Amino acid sequence: MNILITNTTIIPMTAAGYTLCGDIGISGGKIVFIGERDGSFVADKIIDGSNHLTMPALVNAHTHLAMVLMRNYKDDLPTLQEWLSEIFPIEDKLSAEDVYTACRLAVAESIQSGVTTVCDMYFHPSTTIQAIIEGGIRANLGLTLFGDGETSRQRIGERAAIMQAGAAHPSGRITLSAAPHAIYTCTSETYQIARQWAKENGAILHTHLSETRQEVEECIAEHGVTPLIYLQRIGALDDVKCVFAHGVHLSDEEVSLLSSLDASVVHNPSSNLKLDCGIAPIASYKARGVSVALGTDGASSNNNLNMFEEMHVAALLGRLGGRVSPYEVLSMATIDGARALSLDDRIGTLEVGKEADLIMVNLKQPHLTPHNDLFSALVYSAQASDVSTVLCQGKILMENRILTGYDVDSLLEDTEARWASVLSR
Amino acid sequence: MNILITNTTIIPMTAAGYTLCGDIGISGGKIVFIGERDGSFVADKIIDGSNHLTMPALVNAHTHLAMVLMRNYKDDLPTLQEWLSEIFPIEDKLSAEDVYTACRLAVAESIQSGVTTVCDMYFHPSTTIQAIIEGGIRANLGLTLFGDGETSRQRIGERAAIMQAGAAHPSGRITLSAAPHAIYTCTSETYQIARQWAKENGAILHTHLSETRQEVEECIAEHGVTPLIYLQRIGALDDVKCVFAHGVHLSDEEVSLLSSLDASVVHNPSSNLKLDCGIAPIASYKARGVSVALGTDGASSNNNLNMFEEMHVAALLGRLGGRVSPYEVLSMATIDGARALSLDDRIGTLEVGKEADLIMVNLKQPHLTPHNDLFSALVYSAQASDVSTVLCQGKILMENRILTGYDVDSLLEDTEARWASVLSR
Repeated sequence: MNILITNTTIIPMTAAGYTLCGDIGISGGKIVFIGERDGSFVADKIIDGSNHLTMPALVNAHTHLAMVLMRNYKDDLPTLQEWLSEIFPIEDKLSAEDVYTACRLAVAESIQSGVTTVCDMYFHPSTTIQAIIEGGIRANLGLTLFGDGETSRQRIGERAAIMQAGAAHPSGRITLSAAPHAIYTCTSETYQIARQWAKENGAILHTHLSETRQEVEECIAEHGVTPLIYLQRIGALDDVKCVFAHGVHLSDEEVSLLSSLDASVVHNPSSNLKLDCGIAPIASYKARGVSVALGTDGASSNNNLNMFEEMHVAALLGRLGGRVSPYEVLSMATIDGARALSLDDRIGTLEVGKEADLIMVNLKQPHLTPHNDLFSALVYSAQASDVSTVLCQGKILMENRILTGYDVDSLLEDTEARWASVLSR
Repeated sequence: MNILITNTTIIPMTAAGYTLCGDIGISGGKIVFIGERDGSFVADKIIDGSNHLTMPALVNAHTHLAMVLMRNYKDDLPTLQEWLSEIFPIEDKLSAEDVYTACRLAVAESIQSGVTTVCDMYFHPSTTIQAIIEGGIRANLGLTLFGDGETSRQRIGERAAIMQAGAAHPSGRITLSAAPHAIYTCTSETYQIARQWAKENGAILHTHLSETRQEVEECIAEHGVTPLIYLQRIGALDDVKCVFAHGVHLSDEEVSLLSSLDASVVHNPSSNLKLDCGIAPIASYKARGVSVALGTDGASSNNNLNMFEEMHVAALLGRLGGRVSPYEVLSMATIDGARALSLDDRIGTLEVGKEADLIMVNLKQPHLTPHNDLFSALVYSAQASDVSTVLCQGKILMENRILTGYDVDSLLEDTEARWASVLSR
């Protein structure tokens, strides 16, 4: 299908401060022109882009989609550890069908806030893949590992084929990671197995890192070094691309090491504040050459998957200990997220030849008027609900706030019923 | 007009954690029943409250409405002082007509995020009053003072009658404050004059206080004491109700003093982060008995008037240096704001006999599902755009997201044209 977006303000995210006005042509799921219209282009569908800003769709670079089920549940506990002690028993009860229902809701919520790519770490990959493929978005899916080497080998045995089948889907919308949960829940052998599996499967290594001071202190007590140095020492980082979620408490030595690795830190500011983990000093990380992406974490520690809100919080907190400009925050949520997931040759900017993952933001809102600086407007003034239209691979997933692939009423009913069933087990 | 809201989930904000389900009756602008319907009540208008949560409308306890004109303008400057040096010259150019247009936009934006009461400090009270009265919301309006006593006496001479006329409006929706800007822009005599005028006019005293470390350090250097102690020493606080915006950097002595005064601190977390002023430790203020309300500050340092976003940021930051529960954050944005403005006998909770300032939040949203804890949902998951219906004094200002009093397209055009005109002067 050929889609033409007309007369729109375009933020391609290819250079700081750069905007243009014009048309965007999409054919075969890819962008075929930006700005001046190709006169020979015949559109099957025309979208009026006037009064709208068109930009790359957002990348949620660290989340646990199915945790939408536990949204606002056992909320307001003071620490990560206390909260996990409430959440883990619930997670043990979740079936593949529960995860399917939850992921459907999470995908719908993601689309409504302009997200078409997520990096997910959870269980039940078969139904997660199903919800992602049906929902029309992209995901890097983690083969999530806990515990010792034997447990991990068994998990890989059970799940690798399912994940490889997902990655072979002809859309190319599923990519993979090996996802050992964290150094306090996985042995060194599990990390080594994860790294090996990632290398063999063209996957990345996705793990939680230095989320709390307690984690860092316990690592030093047990291993004599901080978490990232420990992972390097056991060979978990050798020749594999890494995504480190959180990275709140990194030493100077770790920041230097990170800047030399093919790795990104994923900033999750809302979750880090909510669980009293601290504030990652991302301005200083970025100044020292570390790649930083942005994520919401799971909805149960946020309590939503709203990347506009996450950009806003990141921009406000970016003022602490440095400065992160609105353009940098938008980059974290688009091209830097794509880069973290090795998707930057396909998405993350609006460029001819890239796949058409884009969002249209309705600028005709009191809270966006007068327009003045559009980059500031997107980060400081805009709301997720200003996203009117979302495309992934050139397919329209939402138009004028209407999700094209979901009956929202039944989606909400299914989710409430499923959650009630989990609680009653 | 008699309005009946049926079958709704009600958060009256009269006790922590308390919710009920039922109907709400409104007559003569006041709440006549909550919960069980009065069988004799004849409704002129029935609003279906199913799938909605009904709660008190929000109070934005510190803002500068007309600064919406400078939204995202000269943004991203590193400090309050640098930013003010860009903003003050623009403000000098603003006419009463500019402020009228700006306030119309600001009132519309406020209603869209569930706000029906604002505490405003700005210039051109005549057109601000006009925009408030026409818009249907409430305001505590500041008679804003800068400079020395002579200047202040002159300003009061020019503006007092206008403000008194506003306060005499039969709706009772306008109340007053004397609003000396800050200790670094006003002399001690101006504060003394402000206090005197407030006492004579049944007004409160509204001022910026301890917004930056620089302000505190300069006050100590000049006066030998911190700002609040200085204001006490010069008699500015004697026997007058006070609203202190910001209060980021308060000493132990000041916190003790505050808890003994008839005074509130207004927390403006987004503005304080954005202008690198710091984070007010409101959990510890509240623990020590200080009343804390919530505000957005002006849209040019935020960059919006979205009290849902402000609640979210306040809740997240409330984890630093203490704990502020979702219920406490909701209180700050409702009854505690009403109390700060001496309006708690009229609004701020849903109770029989109080005026009907209420909002209805549409719960049928992916990002609010499953519901679990509604207080957490409102603070951590909800968006301003979830507010579907807004009433002030029993009058419907927004229904199903449609503003009843505004043609939004022309409002946006007028604002853009007015701002272009200001910039061209």
